[in-house]
Amino acid sequence: MSEIVKIGIIGTGRIGKLHGNNLAFAVPNAKLEAVADLYMNEEMRAWAQGLGVKKVYNNPAQIFNDPEIDAVFICSSSEAHADLIIQAAAAQKHIFCEKPLHTDATKIQSALNAVEKAGVKLQVGFVRRFDHNHKKVRDIVASGRLGKPHIIKVTSRDPEQQPMEYIRNSGGIFLDMTIHDFDMVRYLSGSEVTEVTAIGTVKIDDRISEFNDVDTAIVMLKFANGAIGVIENSRAARYGYDQRVEVHCDKGCVQDYNDLIDTAMISTKEGVYTEKPKWFFLERYNEAFIAEARDFVAIILQDTSPSVTGIDGLMPVLIAKAAQKSLQEGRTVNIAELT
Amino acid sequence: MSEIVKIGIIGTGRIGKLHGNNLAFAVPNAKLEAVADLYMNEEMRAWAQGLGVKKVYNNPAQIFNDPEIDAVFICSSSEAHADLIIQAAAAQKHIFCEKPLHTDATKIQSALNAVEKAGVKLQVGFVRRFDHNHKKVRDIVASGRLGKPHIIKVTSRDPEQQPMEYIRNSGGIFLDMTIHDFDMVRYLSGSEVTEVTAIGTVKIDDRISEFNDVDTAIVMLKFANGAIGVIENSRAARYGYDQRVEVHCDKGCVQDYNDLIDTAMISTKEGVYTEKPKWFFLERYNEAFIAEARDFVAIILQDTSPSVTGIDGLMPVLIAKAAQKSLQEGRTVNIAELT
Amino acid sequence: MSEIVKIGIIGTGRIGKLHGNNLAFAVPNAKLEAVADLYMNEEMRAWAQGLGVKKVYNNPAQIFNDPEIDAVFICSSSEAHADLIIQAAAAQKHIFCEKPLHTDATKIQSALNAVEKAGVKLQVGFVRRFDHNHKKVRDIVASGRLGKPHIIKVTSRDPEQQPMEYIRNSGGIFLDMTIHDFDMVRYLSGSEVTEVTAIGTVKIDDRISEFNDVDTAIVMLKFANGAIGVIENSRAARYGYDQRVEVHCDKGCVQDYNDLIDTAMISTKEGVYTEKPKWFFLERYNEAFIAEARDFVAIILQDTSPSVTGIDGLMPVLIAKAAQKSLQEGRTVNIAELT
Amino acid sequence: MSEIVKIGIIGTGRIGKLHGNNLAFAVPNAKLEAVADLYMNEEMRAWAQGLGVKKVYNNPAQIFNDPEIDAVFICSSSEAHADLIIQAAAAQKHIFCEKPLHTDATKIQSALNAVEKAGVKLQVGFVRRFDHNHKKVRDIVASGRLGKPHIIKVTSRDPEQQPMEYIRNSGGIFLDMTIHDFDMVRYLSGSEVTEVTAIGTVKIDDRISEFNDVDTAIVMLKFANGAIGVIENSRAARYGYDQRVEVHCDKGCVQDYNDLIDTAMISTKEGVYTEKPKWFFLERYNEAFIAEARDFVAIILQDTSPSVTGIDGLMPVLIAKAAQKSLQEGRTVNIAELT
Repeated sequence: MSEIVKIGIIGTGRIGKLHGNNLAFAVPNAKLEAVADLYMNEEMRAWAQGLGVKKVYNNPAQIFNDPEIDAVFICSSSEAHADLIIQAAAAQKHIFCEKPLHTDATKIQSALNAVEKAGVKLQVGFVRRFDHNHKKVRDIVASGRLGKPHIIKVTSRDPEQQPMEYIRNSGGIFLDMTIHDFDMVRYLSGSEVTEVTAIGTVKIDDRISEFNDVDTAIVMLKFANGAIGVIENSRAARYGYDQRVEVHCDKGCVQDYNDLIDTAMISTKEGVYTEKPKWFFLERYNEAFIAEARDFVAIILQDTSPSVTGIDGLMPVLIAKAAQKSLQEGRTVNIAELT
Repeated sequence: MSEIVKIGIIGTGRIGKLHGNNLAFAVPNAKLEAVADLYMNEEMRAWAQGLGVKKVYNNPAQIFNDPEIDAVFICSSSEAHADLIIQAAAAQKHIFCEKPLHTDATKIQSALNAVEKAGVKLQVGFVRRFDHNHKKVRDIVASGRLGKPHIIKVTSRDPEQQPMEYIRNSGGIFLDMTIHDFDMVRYLSGSEVTEVTAIGTVKIDDRISEFNDVDTAIVMLKFANGAIGVIENSRAARYGYDQRVEVHCDKGCVQDYNDLIDTAMISTKEGVYTEKPKWFFLERYNEAFIAEARDFVAIILQDTSPSVTGIDGLMPVLIAKAAQKSLQEGRTVNIAELT
Repeated sequence: MSEIVKIGIIGTGRIGKLHGNNLAFAVPNAKLEAVADLYMNEEMRAWAQGLGVKKVYNNPAQIFNDPEIDAVFICSSSEAHADLIIQAAAAQKHIFCEKPLHTDATKIQSALNAVEKAGVKLQVGFVRRFDHNHKKVRDIVASGRLGKPHIIKVTSRDPEQQPMEYIRNSGGIFLDMTIHDFDMVRYLSGSEVTEVTAIGTVKIDDRISEFNDVDTAIVMLKFANGAIGVIENSRAARYGYDQRVEVHCDKGCVQDYNDLIDTAMISTKEGVYTEKPKWFFLERYNEAFIAEARDFVAIILQDTSPSVTGIDGLMPVLIAKAAQKSLQEGRTVNIAELT
Repeated sequence: MSEIVKIGIIGTGRIGKLHGNNLAFAVPNAKLEAVADLYMNEEMRAWAQGLGVKKVYNNPAQIFNDPEIDAVFICSSSEAHADLIIQAAAAQKHIFCEKPLHTDATKIQSALNAVEKAGVKLQVGFVRRFDHNHKKVRDIVASGRLGKPHIIKVTSRDPEQQPMEYIRNSGGIFLDMTIHDFDMVRYLSGSEVTEVTAIGTVKIDDRISEFNDVDTAIVMLKFANGAIGVIENSRAARYGYDQRVEVHCDKGCVQDYNDLIDTAMISTKEGVYTEKPKWFFLERYNEAFIAEARDFVAIILQDTSPSVTGIDGLMPVLIAKAAQKSLQEGRTVNIAELT
C-alpha cells in the first residue's frame, strides 16, 4: 500500500461530513477519494466539491467497486451499518464504522465474522477514547500506579434534548446515548461488564414516555474484575455537554473535568462567574475526532491491530440491551442472559 | 427558661467529648452542666474538669434526675440510644441524639412516641446538614431557582478503613456510613426515598467478607417526587474524606467540592500539586458540629421546631435496611416493604 | 511561671476584643486576666464580664502594676504602641503588639531597645504569617525544594473602602494596608528589601486625593538575595478580601488562592457561578488569629524566640516610608536612605 | 476581488510555516499561492510541495511582482520587516506582518507612511489578542459592565530559556518577550501607556548579564485613563507557558487562567496532581493563530479596518524602548521622551 490511504465516506450527513472535513484537512496520510450517499443532494455535492472530491456517488456500491479506494468510513444510519460492513469486507476495504455497529447482536456477529474472514481491519467510532482527558484517566488506571480499580463513575449529559423525531428513532436512551458510556466504562476499567441494573425517569419531556423511553437514567454495573460502576445520564443538562469520568482505585482516585469554553473568571459582589463546559460533541470532541481518524489511518499504514475492535463494538450493544431489560423488568440483568 | 440552656452529656467517648468541647467553648447560650458515662474513668474526669464541669457521673440517671439540667446530648453506643431517649423524655429533658437513633425501627418508633407524649424537643445528629457547602447546595435546590430536581448524587468516602473491631460492630456499611448519605439525599431532594437498589464489593479488606459486609458500595434510589439518585461509598479513599454532593435540576446543576487543607499550588516540570481534602469528619465538619449545637440551643430557647426531626432519624434507618436487603437478595427493594 | 499565661489586654476596640475572645475561648494555656481601655465604657464592660474577666481598668498602668499578669496584648491606637511597649517592658511583662509598632522608626527603635534591656519577649501582630495558605507557600519556598526565589508577588485588596475618617488617620495606604504585604514579602522571600518603587492612583474615592493618598497602588521591590517582587493593592475589590501570594523559583512556582465562602458551584445556561472569597480579615484570618495567640503563649511557656520579632516590626515601617517617598518623588528609593 | 484571497508567505522559518499550514488547511477563504525565503532550501521546498504550493521563490520580489497575489505574510527576521512592508505596499499587496514591526521607531514610521500612501491593509501579528481567554477578558472590560479599569496585570513566562544565540540577537527581553505583554496591556486597558518603570534580575543564566540583558523582569505602567498596571516576566517558568491576565475595575475583577494539557486530577495520600499549562506558544496559541489568519482574510474580503493596526505595531516598540531606558537608568521613563 502507498503512503497515502485513499478513503471513501458512506453517508454524508452530519457525522459523515465531520469525518470528511477531518480527512481532507487534518489527517496527513489520508486522501478523501470519494463520498456516497443514497440521498445525495446539491448541498452534499457542493460540500464534496469544496473539499476537492471528484467521485461523488449515490450508491455505496460504487465505492466498494472502486479499486483505488483502500478504506471506507461508514457513517450511514445505524440499521445499515452491519450490511455495509459485510459488503465492505467482501470488497477488501478496511472499515471505520460509526457506533453502534447495529442494534441487533446477531447482525453484529455476522458482520464481525465477515471482517475476520476477509482479513480487513475494522475500527469502531467510539471517539471518546481519543479525548485527551478521558484517555489520560484511562492511562493512569491502566498503568497500575493507583492499584486495582474499585469504582468506575461516568457522568454524561447532553446539553439540550435532541429533536423528538430523532429520539423516537434512536433505539432508546441506552442504545443512543449511554452506549458511549458503556464503552467508556469498559475502556476505563479494562474489564467486562457482568451485571446491569438500570433506573430511569422522565423529567424533561413527557412525550418521551409515549415510546417507553426515559430521559434521565442511572445504571449500576458489576465488572468481571470485581469493580463496580455507575453511569448517570440526562438528555438536557442545559449548561453544556457534561462529560466527566472518575475511577477510584486501591491507592486513590483519578477523575477528569469538563473542558470549558474559556478560562475567564469574573468576580463581583454577586459572586464569581466562569464559563460553561463546551457546548456539545462537535466542540468537546473536535480534537478527538481528528485523533481517531489519524489513528485509523496509522493502523492501516503500519498494519497494526485496531484500537477499538469489533468486540468493542458488540459489547456496549449487549450492555445497552441488558439495561433496557433491567429498566423494563425492575431487576438486575446478567449480561450472560443476552448471549 | 433562662437565657442559658444547661446541658448534660451522656456518653463521653470521642463524639461526646467533641460536643462537650463545643458546648463549653463555642455555644454562647449553653452551659455544660454535667457529664455521665457508664465507664467513667480518670481520663474522662480530667477532661470534664478542664472544662469546668463539676457534675461528673457514672450513671445517666443522675443527669435525668438533676432538675437543673434542661437538655441532654445522647452520645452513647447506638443500641442504648432509644432507651435513653425514652428516659430523657420521661424526665422532661430536651434531647439531642447522635445518629442512628437505633438499628431497630420498632425501637425508634417507641422512642419517637415517648418524645411526642412528653412534648420535649428531639434533634438528631445528622451534622452534615450544617456543613456550609452541603447546606448551600440544598438551599439552592430548595429555593426552586433551578426548577425541580432530576438526579441526586452523593460521593462519600472515608479516608482510611476504621479498625476491624469497629466495623464488625457497626451494623454494616449502610447503617454505619451510608446512613449519613441517606439523610443527605432526603435533605437535598426534599422528598422521600421509595425504592432502593444496592450493589457492593469487597476491595479493601477481605476480612469484611467474613461478616457479610462490603467496603465499596453503590446505591440507586427513587424518590417520591420522581427524581432518581445515586450514592457511592468507599471505606478507604486514601486521599482524605471525600464528601461531594450534586443535584441536577430542570435548569442546571448545583454541586459542591471538598474543602482542602490549604490552597497552595505548586507548579513544576512534573505537574501541578495541590493539597488533599481535609482528612476526616473532625476536620471537615468541625464548624458544622458547632453550628449544629448552636442550632439545637436556639431551638430550645426560641421554642421552635427541630431542624432534624425524629422522622429524619427514622427514615435513613429504614433506607439502610432496604439497602441491606437489596444487596442480599439482588433486587430492588421498596421502602414500603420495611414498614 | 505556671502552666497558664495570665494576660491583660490594652485597648478593647475591634482588634482588642477579637484577641480577647480568642484568649478566653481558644487558647488552652492562656487566661484573660484583665482588660484596660482609656475610654472604657459600658459596652466594653459587658463584653469583659461575658468572658468572666473581673479586672476591668481604664488605665493601662493598672495592668502593668498587677503582679499577677504575665503578658500584655497592646491593641491601642498605633501612636501609643511604642510608649506602651516601653512601659510594659519596664514592668517585666511579655508583649504582643499589634502592627504597626509605630509610624516613627526612631520611636520603634527606642521600644526595641527597652524590650532588649528588659529581657522580655516581644511579638508583633503580623497575623497573615499564621494563615494556613500563606504559611504553606512560605514553607515550600523555605524548604528549598523549588530552588531560589526569583519573583515574589502579592495581591492584596480590601473588600470595601474603610470609612474616610479611618483612612484620613491611617498614615496612608502604605502604612495602613501595604504594611502587611511588606511583611509578607519579607516572610516569603526570606530576604530583606533593598529598593522600592511605587506608583498609585485614585480610582475609588476622589476625597482620598485631598490628603495626598492613593487608593490603588503597585509597589516593585528588589531584595538582598537578588529576587524581585511586586505588591498590588486596592482599597475596594468589591468581591471580598482578595489575598493571594505567589513565588516563582528556579524550578517552578508556588502560589495560593483565596479561601471561598463555600464550594457550591451552580451551572446553568448563563454560566457557572461560585462563591466569592471570604469577606474580610475577620473571616479570612479567623483561624490565623487563634494560631497567632497560641504561638505567643507557647513561646512564653517554652521560653523560645518570638516568631515575629521586633525587627520584623521595624522593617515594614521603613519599607512603607520608602514607598511613600517613591510615590511622592517619582523615583526608586533605596531602603538605606531611610536608616 | 474574488472570494478567495491569494497569499504569499515571505520567510518560511518556524513562524512562516505555522502560518502556511494554517492558510492551507484552516482558513476557508485563503489560498496559499506562493512562498519565498532568501535561504530557500530542500526542506522548505518539500514542505511547500506538501501543501500543494507551486510557486516557491528565493526572493520576496518574485512575490511582490506576481499580479495573482493579493496579500503577503511577512515572517522574515525582524530587521527586514519595515523594508518588506514598504515594498509590499508599493506592490499594492495587503500585509500581515509578524511582530515587532522593527526595533527602530523611525523605520516603523516610514513603513506606516508607505502603507497609508498605498492604501493597503496592514495587520500586525499580535496573536494573543485572538486567544479565547484573553479576548474574553478584554471583551468584559470593553463592555463596561465592570466599570472603569483600575489595575491591569499580566503574568507572562516562557517555559524554558530559548537558545543563547537567539537571546543574544533578540533585542533584549523587552523587545523580544515583553513586547507581546505591552500589546496586551494596551488591548486590555483600551488606553495608551504614558509612563514605564522597569526592574530586572538575572536568575536563570548568568551569560545573559554579558549582553546587558535580564531574564526576570517586572514592569510597572501608568495609562492615560488613570489606570496602573504591572507585567511580570521570566524566561524559564519550567512548568509550561504561564500566560495569565487580570483587570481589576470599579465593580470587580476579571482574570483568566492557563489552558491545561488535560483536566485529569489524581488524588492520593501524597496530594492532588493535575497537569501543567500547555507547553509553549504553538500549543497554547494554536487556535489563536488560526483565528488571526481568518480575521486578516475576512478584513480583506469585507474591506474593513485591521484589528491590529500599524499604531498597535508601533506603540509596544516605544514602550519596550522606554522599559530598556528605565532599567538602565534606574528611573521612571515617560513615553513622550521616546517620541
